[in-house]
This record gives sequence, structure tokens and C-alpha cells, in this order.
Amino acid sequence: MGTAVIYGSSRKNGNSEQLAKRLTEGFETDHIFLADYKIEPIKDYRHAEKEPYPEDDYHSVIERVLAQDVLVFATPIYWYGASGLTKSFIDRWSQSLREDRDGFLAKLSTKSAWVIAVGDDEPHLKGIPLIQQFQHIFDFTGTRFEGYVLGKANRPGDILEDKAALAAVEEIRNKWRGALANG
Amino acid sequence: MGTAVIYGSSRKNGNSEQLAKRLTEGFETDHIFLADYKIEPIKDYRHAEKEPYPEDDYHSVIERVLAQDVLVFATPIYWYGASGLTKSFIDRWSQSLREDRDGFLAKLSTKSAWVIAVGDDEPHLKGIPLIQQFQHIFDFTGTRFEGYVLGKANRPGDILEDKAALAAVEEIRNKWRGALANG
Amino acid sequence: MGTAVIYGSSRKNGNSEQLAKRLTEGFETDHIFLADYKIEPIKDYRHAEKEPYPEDDYHSVIERVLAQDVLVFATPIYWYGASGLTKSFIDRWSQSLREDRDGFLAKLSTKSAWVIAVGDDEPHLKGIPLIQQFQHIFDFTGTRFEGYVLGKANRPGDILEDKAALAAVEEIRNKWRGALANG
Amino acid sequence: MGTAVIYGSSRKNGNSEQLAKRLTEGFETDHIFLADYKIEPIKDYRHAEKEPYPEDDYHSVIERVLAQDVLVFATPIYWYGASGLTKSFIDRWSQSLREDRDGFLAKLSTKSAWVIAVGDDEPHLKGIPLIQQFQHIFDFTGTRFEGYVLGKANRPGDILEDKAALAAVEEIRNKWRGALANG
Repeated sequence: MGTAVIYGSSRKNGNSEQLAKRLTEGFETDHIFLADYKIEPIKDYRHAEKEPYPEDDYHSVIERVLAQDVLVFATPIYWYGASGLTKSFIDRWSQSLREDRDGFLAKLSTKSAWVIAVGDDEPHLKGIPLIQQFQHIFDFTGTRFEGYVLGKANRPGDILEDKAALAAVEEIRNKWRGALANG
Repeated sequence: MGTAVIYGSSRKNGNSEQLAKRLTEGFETDHIFLADYKIEPIKDYRHAEKEPYPEDDYHSVIERVLAQDVLVFATPIYWYGASGLTKSFIDRWSQSLREDRDGFLAKLSTKSAWVIAVGDDEPHLKGIPLIQQFQHIFDFTGTRFEGYVLGKANRPGDILEDKAALAAVEEIRNKWRGALANG
Repeated sequence: MGTAVIYGSSRKNGNSEQLAKRLTEGFETDHIFLADYKIEPIKDYRHAEKEPYPEDDYHSVIERVLAQDVLVFATPIYWYGASGLTKSFIDRWSQSLREDRDGFLAKLSTKSAWVIAVGDDEPHLKGIPLIQQFQHIFDFTGTRFEGYVLGKANRPGDILEDKAALAAVEEIRNKWRGALANG
Repeated sequence: MGTAVIYGSSRKNGNSEQLAKRLTEGFETDHIFLADYKIEPIKDYRHAEKEPYPEDDYHSVIERVLAQDVLVFATPIYWYGASGLTKSFIDRWSQSLREDRDGFLAKLSTKSAWVIAVGDDEPHLKGIPLIQQFQHIFDFTGTRFEGYVLGKANRPGDILEDKAALAAVEEIRNKWRGALANG
């Protein structure tokens, strides 16, 4: 069971990162910080003839994501949604659909996914549309949406005070340990 | 009553654009195509000391937005959310909050807003989280969220077959005409 | 194409009723006013042995519903959800599942459904959870969720001032006329 | 800090009840089982002259609810929403608004509320509209919506296997203990 964490924050060591690291500590994990790569917005070529997609880091990043079994999207809640970095990365999946639709969906359909989202304005309520958006995304790709943690924090480190988020993370770790033991 | 349309598509003449143009035809409108500008993802400096925000087109674009009374966000529904271009632009509002919180919010609180979102996978249902996200955004900024149109289309021009979307647009135009007449 | 309208208001001639009647005028329709019948809350016998379900009007009402091709749920928005009458009626579907699961689902899976919901506190935004609940219901039963109209009104008759709702209703009527013409 | 639990299940000792009892064990609690009382659907008299509201148990139940500081709504997820018993009880709040709007809202505005909802069809995702509906309800009444637990269970007792739900309940209990200690 290999895990890829896709970090969507623009700052290092922020709360969503801290929570995802706590979640994955001790498990085989590829930590992918989107802010470290150049990933341009999607070009919408759905109905255009030629398609010179941006020459950037998208392919290398998506290959790393597809190489793992479990995907964890760790994003701060910016303006009640996933960060622009996260959203622009997912938008590029349309490129993968265009390049190899069946192969791309076949890979995603074998994976399970988790979402870690941290914000400070009533995240358990106002972060709900973000979760529902991922629900529709994973329905489309056939990925099993295992669950999510909505954490409350503002200053880096605050998340360690969110006892409910930490407990939820610990439950996921227990589940993973059980899966590995039975694996 | 001046209107700014913020177009979030990466292609020209797409369905969300066509619908927004139909909405605003004949009204004083500043058409802002985000794809024409360089607007980088937000740097999260909320708790950092220095803040060299990206030197790009954000300031000039947000000034044009703030100069109008009515804001129309016209975005394709990409992966069940606003486009990455749209999301990254809104994420940058955090920069404006950092630079002049009170002034920025004071301006946004006098405006009204509409959302036009067009997709092809059950947009009236699966586009709902996108609308709820905008609902929370406008609650935060104090902007009056007047309404939205969720249109169904895929190939450019399809939107002109979505009679319900066209009727909804016509009702908004009637409302605007009435507002101007009573001005 | 026969239509059943399931009215969930406790008052006669309210706004959701007026809108649904305008929608169905001239079409073959069975108008079912839940308030006219005795339909008790569900008894949860999922894991009990005996199941003396209430002897009330549920069976006769659900039979009328299942006899039609198109279902229209017309409910006032009470406390941001469907009325208790509407909810208690749908809860009783669990009884039908218990009595004849396959037959019940087979019938519902051939039907299409619409929702008409009218409220006065930002129904286009705060009525959204109600729509999403119906989305999950129809996903479960395999019923095609054709669409919905969220209308704004308070005093009986106010709905006739909601031009967008009237336009939406007219579009559905046009669609139905087309379906009848194409037979 | 007195707590009222409003149980919305039609069966005794079901999963939502078990979870709510675990939550409140050892705290001063009034356990109110809606199924034990006669509470008819609301009559919509908003614009009618006379208003003979049903002579049933509503007044005595709402008085017990209003006598406590903390409200816990414990409902099974029936058809992706609160049970009909729960919904019909809340619908009756419109009667209290009619009888003493200011007094009723003043009381509710001093309280905090929690929601416990248990279902077996992806409750963490498909139970979300139920939570959003309560969000709008508590926004209206000015009640502080402290949080919610979405549990997964089907057969009575299954909920005790939902480790994440139990952990979430334990966190709330810790919070309450802290409040009492600081009280």
C-alpha cells in the first residue's frame, strides 16, 4: 500500500501539511508539494484540433500520483474551496483524459482517496462544498472516496490543537495498520 | 450600473462566455478574460514576515473588477468546480485582504454578484457545490449574491440549445432593465 | 405520459401548489394532496421480526404515485427542507422496500421526477440541501431526476411574481409538449 | 449545562440513540423520544386568520427542549434526511414563531446544538445535505451549531464498530468536561 500525498498549499509546514504528515508518518509515502512544480492551468482543447499542452511538470507529477495505491489530497481551504494549485492540477486531468482516457480512468479506478482540508472559518460547515466537489470527482474517475478530515486552524501549528481532527487521523492510521496486517 | 464579467475559461468563445455575453449584451460591461492575463497562485503570507507578492496582472485586474457595481463570474464547470483560473484569481483576494482589508471588503460589500457556470455532466445537480462555494465567498465579503445560472453544454454553441438557461438569462436582463429604468 | 403531483403543503392553494398546477395544466395529471390523507411516520422494522405497519392511507397513495410515469414533488420549503408531510411519506417507502423491494425499485426506476420547492428565505441558495437530498433519493431508486424549480414566495400568490420560476415552468411544459408530440 | 437529546428514530435502542446515549452518559440530560409523543404535522397558518393548532404534545415537548442549554438532535438518516418525526417536530417551530416569535428566538439564540445522524449508505457524504439543512436552521434561530457526528451503521449496535464516530463522540465529551470544569 503506497500512498501519495498531494499538498496544495503555497506555504511550507502549514496546517494541512502538518496534518497529512501526521497521518502518513511511518507509512510508505510519496510527498508531492504542488508548489514545488510548474503546473499551468488547463488549456481547453476538447473541441480544438491541435493541442500543444503546456510543457511543464504535469506529466511527471501525475505519474507519481498514479504510481501509488492511496491518494491523499491535503489542501488548505482557500475561499471555501481547494487551493488554486490543487484545482489547477486536477483541471489538468482533462489533458490526461484527452491523451489516454481509458488508461487514465482505469488507473484511477483502482485507487482509494482521502481528503484533508484545513481552514479557520467553520471548516466543518463551510468546507462541505469542497468535499462534495471531490465526491463528484471521484464518482467520475471511479476512485473509492474513503473519507475526509476537515480541520480547524489558522496559524501554522494550530491544527495540533484540533483534537477531533487528530482523533480522526488516528482512526485512519488504525485502519491502515489493519489493512497492512491483513494485507 | 456598470458590470464586470470575469471569464474563467481557457478557451475563447466557449459556452460560459457565450451565455455571459448574451446576458450582458447592450449593458455597459467590462469583459475581463482571465486567460489573457498573468495571475499566479496566491502566496500564503498570512503568518510570514515579508510578502513579495507576484509581480503580475493581479492588481490591474482586481481594480477593473472593483470599479464596477455588478460582478458576473462566468466559468466553465471543470471537475465540478470553478476553473483553476477563476479559483486562482479569487485566492489572490487574500493578498488584497492583507494589503487593505477594510478598503477591499468595503468595496465588495457594495456590489451584487451573479454566477454563470456551464458544464455537461448534470450541471444542475453536480454544479451545486460550486454555487455553495460562491455563497460562502459572498457571505464573507458581504457581496449580495443575486443569483446564478447553471447551463448544460459541451461543444461550443451547445448552450444556445439550453432553453432553460436562456430563459433564466432573459429574466435577469429584464430585472436589470427594470433597475435601470427605476435607476 | 401520465403525471402524479405529490403536494406536501398543509395549506390549500399555497405557492408550491399554484406553481405545480401551472406546470401541469393541460397535461393528464393525478393531483395527490398528502394533507388529505392519513400517513403515519414509518415504523423502523428493518431488524425486527413482526411488522404491523400502520393501517392508514399509505398503500392507496403510493399505488397512485406508481401508476404514473412522471412524478412531481411539490413542497413548500419548511425549515430548509421538504415539509414533514412529504418527508414522512417518503420515509414510508422503506415499508415498500420491506414488502416488495425488487418490485418497488423496478417501478421507480422507470420514472422521471421533478421537484418544485417554494420558500421565502433565499430559496435558490438555502433550498439547495433539499435538492441534494432528492438527488440521493433518486440515485437510490434509479429514478431519473429531470430537474427542479426553486421558487421564491411567502404570501399565497406571491409565486406568480417570480418571473424566473414561471419561465422555468414554461420550459418544462415546452419539453413535455415536445415529448408528447414525438410520442 | 443541561442537555436535551431529541431522538427522532421510530425504534428504540437504534444506532443514533446508542451513539447519543454514549455522548451524554454522565451528563445531566433530558432524553426526549419523539416517538413517545403525539406531534402532528404543522398547519400552515402563516396567512390564515384563525389558527387552531393541533392539541397534541408539541407544547410540552418544546418546553422541555427550551429548558436546556445544549440541544442534541439524534436522528437516523432516513432517505438522506432527518427522520419524518424529527422534521415534523421542527416544522412545528413555525407555530412557536407565530405564538411568540421574539421569545422563541431569544431562547434558541442562547443555546448550542449538536447533530448526531447515523445511516448506512455513505453517511459521511450522503448525509451532508442533512447537516447543511441544520446549518440553515440554526443560522435562522441564532443557535450556535457546535458540530455533528455522522455515523455509519445499519443493524442496531453496528455503531459501536464505527471507531471514528466513537472517537468524535469522545472528543465532544472531553470538550464538555472542560466546559464544566471551567464553568
